[in-house]
Amino acid sequence: MKIAVVLLSGGLDSATVLAMAREQGYACHCLSLDYGQRHRAELTAAASVARALGAAHHRMVKIDLAGFGGSALTDTRIAVPTGGVAGGIPVTYVPARNTILLSFALANAEVCGANDIFFGANAVDYSGYPDCRPAYVKAYEAMANLATKAAVEGQQLTVHTPIIALSKAEIIRQGVVLGVDFAQTVSCYQATDEGLACGVCDACRLRRTGFEQAGVADPTHYRDDKK
Amino acid sequence: MKIAVVLLSGGLDSATVLAMAREQGYACHCLSLDYGQRHRAELTAAASVARALGAAHHRMVKIDLAGFGGSALTDTRIAVPTGGVAGGIPVTYVPARNTILLSFALANAEVCGANDIFFGANAVDYSGYPDCRPAYVKAYEAMANLATKAAVEGQQLTVHTPIIALSKAEIIRQGVVLGVDFAQTVSCYQATDEGLACGVCDACRLRRTGFEQAGVADPTHYRDDKK
Repeated sequence: MKIAVVLLSGGLDSATVLAMAREQGYACHCLSLDYGQRHRAELTAAASVARALGAAHHRMVKIDLAGFGGSALTDTRIAVPTGGVAGGIPVTYVPARNTILLSFALANAEVCGANDIFFGANAVDYSGYPDCRPAYVKAYEAMANLATKAAVEGQQLTVHTPIIALSKAEIIRQGVVLGVDFAQTVSCYQATDEGLACGVCDACRLRRTGFEQAGVADPTHYRDDKK
Repeated sequence: MKIAVVLLSGGLDSATVLAMAREQGYACHCLSLDYGQRHRAELTAAASVARALGAAHHRMVKIDLAGFGGSALTDTRIAVPTGGVAGGIPVTYVPARNTILLSFALANAEVCGANDIFFGANAVDYSGYPDCRPAYVKAYEAMANLATKAAVEGQQLTVHTPIIALSKAEIIRQGVVLGVDFAQTVSCYQATDEGLACGVCDACRLRRTGFEQAGVADPTHYRDDKK
């Protein structure tokens, strides 16, 4: 059985990507990075999603990006914007985050003998992040194919980004078809430790609009939810 | 004053690179990664070297590469070879290590406003590591220039590898000229916590030969040293 490393954040996008990799017949070694993000709910969600979608393995690695600061997601002194999605690169951008995540995935791939990394980057709804663009992913792949012992020995690594060109609504529809339980996922940038979403940060707004546009009932647990 | 991020391992090579970056007039933000290597002497050495060579800042970041295993440097069940330098990629190769180190340097560079990373890769004495080759470094730089907010805003990042084509003897001579105190550095793959070198691993052999060929007295503290 072919092996893939799947970067799993606990959000809606990477859960769908895991389901897509499973659908393509990969034994999925999921990797979640505890990088000092504001809340723990994301990592708890990643564990539930990995289990529910039949991951072969799930590894959680702790790294210290909070020490670098420079982002609303890792520095509590920088407020998460809640006024609506604006243009430009948002303050929730974490310096070099995806490069670091992919580098751990690359190490993991080499150790478990995988030639495939699945990565839930998305360039449509959220074009503000430089490290979600197709040109970046291609350049990463080219670098990775010079970086490792596996590459020298002739293995070709592919970084799959199956949702990079999909809208949030399309990702949700794809996930529904593949049996993703979105109630398990947490997208909110400032969720409570129990996974309750704020409803007003960019991630919540894009997610809510995505469910509306997909015509799928939104299973998100919001803080102000009276259910 | 222009700022550089310098990856500092505590070994002879990166100490010389730090001295070269200082000589070129950079304010040096040193970065050492505690990645679960076998011994702590390397990190203690890095701190001494940063102080002695006038680093503006020294950050130590802890990451867990030992959890991935796959290398004699991070997995104590894999023995460090001591029989002499052989051909091919050695078991001391750590999967994707330099890619991970450079990615943390990239994050650090973005946060402290540096457009320059100094990296002590060397392709001559130790050609066995894929992630020490010039083609790899160029590919990394190309990727990095698509990865960050700084890149999108027009900053051009350069990964400097000033010793990549030097022999160990040339690196040592260069370091001597720039006032590096090599007694502070630790190269041994299995040094004691006090920094005593084994004298027989590949790193010790290359270092010892380097001092001989440079005509410089070897200040290394060996375990069997009777001084």
